[in-house]
Amino acid sequence: MRIPIDRSLTTPLYRQIETWLKENISSGGLAPGTRLPASRVLADELGVSRITVKNAYAGLESDGLILTREGSGTYVMPPTADSTRGSEDDALTWPLWQVEAAGEPQPRVDPGRPQYRHPQLISFTGVGDPRLFPLRDFAHTLQDVLHRDGLSALEYGAFGGGYGPLRETVTHVLASQGIQAHPQNVLITSGSQQALALACQVLLKAGDVVVVEKPTYNMALDLFRFLGLKMIGVPVDEGGMQIDGLETLLQQVHPRLIYTIPNFQNPSGACMSGARRRQLLALAQRYNVPILEDDFVGDLRYEGHGQPAIKALDGGGHVIYVGTFSKMLMPGLRVGYLLANGPIFKRLVDQKQAQDLTTAPLMQRALDRYVTVGRYQAHLRRTTRLYRARRDAMLGAIRRHLPGVRVLPPQGGLFAWLKLPDGLSSLRLLPLALEAGVEFAPGTRFFPLPGEGEPFLRLNFAACTPEEIEQGMLRLGQVLRRMEG
Amino acid sequence: MRIPIDRSLTTPLYRQIETWLKENISSGGLAPGTRLPASRVLADELGVSRITVKNAYAGLESDGLILTREGSGTYVMPPTADSTRGSEDDALTWPLWQVEAAGEPQPRVDPGRPQYRHPQLISFTGVGDPRLFPLRDFAHTLQDVLHRDGLSALEYGAFGGGYGPLRETVTHVLASQGIQAHPQNVLITSGSQQALALACQVLLKAGDVVVVEKPTYNMALDLFRFLGLKMIGVPVDEGGMQIDGLETLLQQVHPRLIYTIPNFQNPSGACMSGARRRQLLALAQRYNVPILEDDFVGDLRYEGHGQPAIKALDGGGHVIYVGTFSKMLMPGLRVGYLLANGPIFKRLVDQKQAQDLTTAPLMQRALDRYVTVGRYQAHLRRTTRLYRARRDAMLGAIRRHLPGVRVLPPQGGLFAWLKLPDGLSSLRLLPLALEAGVEFAPGTRFFPLPGEGEPFLRLNFAACTPEEIEQGMLRLGQVLRRMEG
Repeated sequence: MRIPIDRSLTTPLYRQIETWLKENISSGGLAPGTRLPASRVLADELGVSRITVKNAYAGLESDGLILTREGSGTYVMPPTADSTRGSEDDALTWPLWQVEAAGEPQPRVDPGRPQYRHPQLISFTGVGDPRLFPLRDFAHTLQDVLHRDGLSALEYGAFGGGYGPLRETVTHVLASQGIQAHPQNVLITSGSQQALALACQVLLKAGDVVVVEKPTYNMALDLFRFLGLKMIGVPVDEGGMQIDGLETLLQQVHPRLIYTIPNFQNPSGACMSGARRRQLLALAQRYNVPILEDDFVGDLRYEGHGQPAIKALDGGGHVIYVGTFSKMLMPGLRVGYLLANGPIFKRLVDQKQAQDLTTAPLMQRALDRYVTVGRYQAHLRRTTRLYRARRDAMLGAIRRHLPGVRVLPPQGGLFAWLKLPDGLSSLRLLPLALEAGVEFAPGTRFFPLPGEGEPFLRLNFAACTPEEIEQGMLRLGQVLRRMEG
Repeated sequence: MRIPIDRSLTTPLYRQIETWLKENISSGGLAPGTRLPASRVLADELGVSRITVKNAYAGLESDGLILTREGSGTYVMPPTADSTRGSEDDALTWPLWQVEAAGEPQPRVDPGRPQYRHPQLISFTGVGDPRLFPLRDFAHTLQDVLHRDGLSALEYGAFGGGYGPLRETVTHVLASQGIQAHPQNVLITSGSQQALALACQVLLKAGDVVVVEKPTYNMALDLFRFLGLKMIGVPVDEGGMQIDGLETLLQQVHPRLIYTIPNFQNPSGACMSGARRRQLLALAQRYNVPILEDDFVGDLRYEGHGQPAIKALDGGGHVIYVGTFSKMLMPGLRVGYLLANGPIFKRLVDQKQAQDLTTAPLMQRALDRYVTVGRYQAHLRRTTRLYRARRDAMLGAIRRHLPGVRVLPPQGGLFAWLKLPDGLSSLRLLPLALEAGVEFAPGTRFFPLPGEGEPFLRLNFAACTPEEIEQGMLRLGQVLRRMEG
């Protein structure tokens, strides 16, 4: 126990020790039941006499904070009501640099979630259905890897791109999606979020302009806001980002990045048409702007023909492609990847290393083994079948229970994007819906500017069984009728 | 297989498919032995006629790239010598933004490691001894957690600080080191490297000045370089950072951050004296500069009395404290933490979330359980005993085999920091040492400016058994005598 004592002070040492222990006990840092060191041991550690420590302990004992049991030891007692203190954040004057760095509080777009929680809440938030994850298979895979690789599975492993076999496995997965890649152009990241962050950090600085789809992935918007980027939104329709006005934008505001989710877009579910993919790439080339392509569920298609990734059309290093296994498996894996060609790749690798050295090697190895032995493909097939049925159930239930609501039928992915009847707000709907036992993500989260997106809401249809979907839409329809009436 | 085909081109569809597959096979994206989809299936997927696919396959087969076995399927053949292509990075003209972002190549301080590898290399690089990690215990802990928590162990879990029980466990570990902390001021990070990165990203912008110890941790220097920070080094002696000249520096160059490793510093092994800790904190307060305190092995003491962490003396939110379990357990865990008070904490949490959402929940839960059931404390005691013996062996072997070399005897931690006799360079020593079968980290890695630190080298004495240490220093002594003679 390294208790800070200062011999230059006039406060006696026993008092310094007593005060420190007292504060630490009432803060909870020393939990009730914690055994304190014997006075002889602590005296030795601190370089003070044993009587000094005994004095300190005596003071604490008379305050009822500790209890000495002869022959057993000295223990921290549960705190009494008056020993707990209020929030420290109110009490102090913080250094000026703290006040500066904390900056302006972010505007709060969404209202706080009400305290009340419906006992049978049906939630359409989140991504996919974590309940489908084959936990037993994955637990076995972890044990296989620890048995096979021993301690190497817990050392740093290779910096500079990630675990070699996983980088190669990623190229095989990409090949099945029409993207030709070399392992040496694959960088393993801590989820796709980190891949987005790395690309931004390497390419952009605060004040730069980034083109985003409108609506788009809320965590990407949070990231852009955090980096102090200016966002310009280009509307999305059923053919993806509307490319028409983009050229004027590129000429006038000189954005430094175009962020797009071409497949089963989050949140709109839209797929960018092949023609638009080619136009977008041509514009990026002409105006010297990199494309950041986020393909988070590109292989989760329920019907129709897939379009090639923009990266697959890119022969000249214009596109940084970001993918992940998390959305199909478990978000908590925290393993994603990016694919980039040209000198920028080395910069991305260096940036990754500066940020966190490497992604947990055990998770990289387990994921690689899981995919390699064919479990991922089997899981994907099974999941696709299930999610397709859920999408159909969702579209049917919306038709039945939500007249007046417009929806873009998604051909794949996880999300249905709904537009409420004129005059209705998803922000005002949410608390009533929660009360009725149904949860969704209000549209405002997915727009770059506050105030946009109120008529919209996003449903993760993949999260729930057809029965839950039916029940959830029934509840939502009842709430809507109440709001309209 | 989402092969990109473009109906607007004059190139026939079968040729587009053939070309794409050909490139993908020769790049290795489609590995030898991969089974291609049946022509009917692929035709259906791409929305082309079956004869188109058959034509494409026929072309590939006549080139020897695939093989069709009747009744079995179509398979990719191993590539021939002339089908492999050279490095793409030489061949292409990259977009202008790539050339700009790639920027100037970093100066290369260390020479490349020679190809030759000694069959019985004794390496004093790295941190600690990964061989001591109780792999079986940890594998059991992982299974316990998966069994106990089920799917929750692989969901996102709580954003905003990390896994609650682990945040609390961290405060208990900190309490035993004299630091009073509330769980709500603890942020779990992906290793201590990410904690350093988050603090810099929240507090600094490119061009800002940061005060570092000279020498200091090389990966922190890499991070600062990456962020475009200007580094000013303050020399370290056996009492840690030399505070004397710091006030002038604070007045003249207005640094925005002071980075310090007060305990068993990496690489020097020095411990900052109690008086200097208080002086440093007082200066930070007076000049409104945050302290980033990196306590990577503070609990690994072999003798003497520990000094309180600077954070333990800080009542006003001037210090951001960074800790980790990685150095004592396994680097590959990738779990660290930071402790901060005041409004800056919320900013750090938000920054973490923008960067990678959350640190792998399974690793957080496993680490928490490992520490909570007392295995960490037991491992720490055992490791301390072993490492102390290794430190003693190292100091003895240096005395015996390296006359003329100066060393600061470390009271804890992992490193011995050596100064070579006048005129000798650790950079020139390294290739000869490797040839003789001994490896170390040359001092140049640990200085902010190129050209500094050549007379120094760092030895991770904790990595090797006393016998290996004896043998390693014997070899190093022989090489040194050859260089001097």
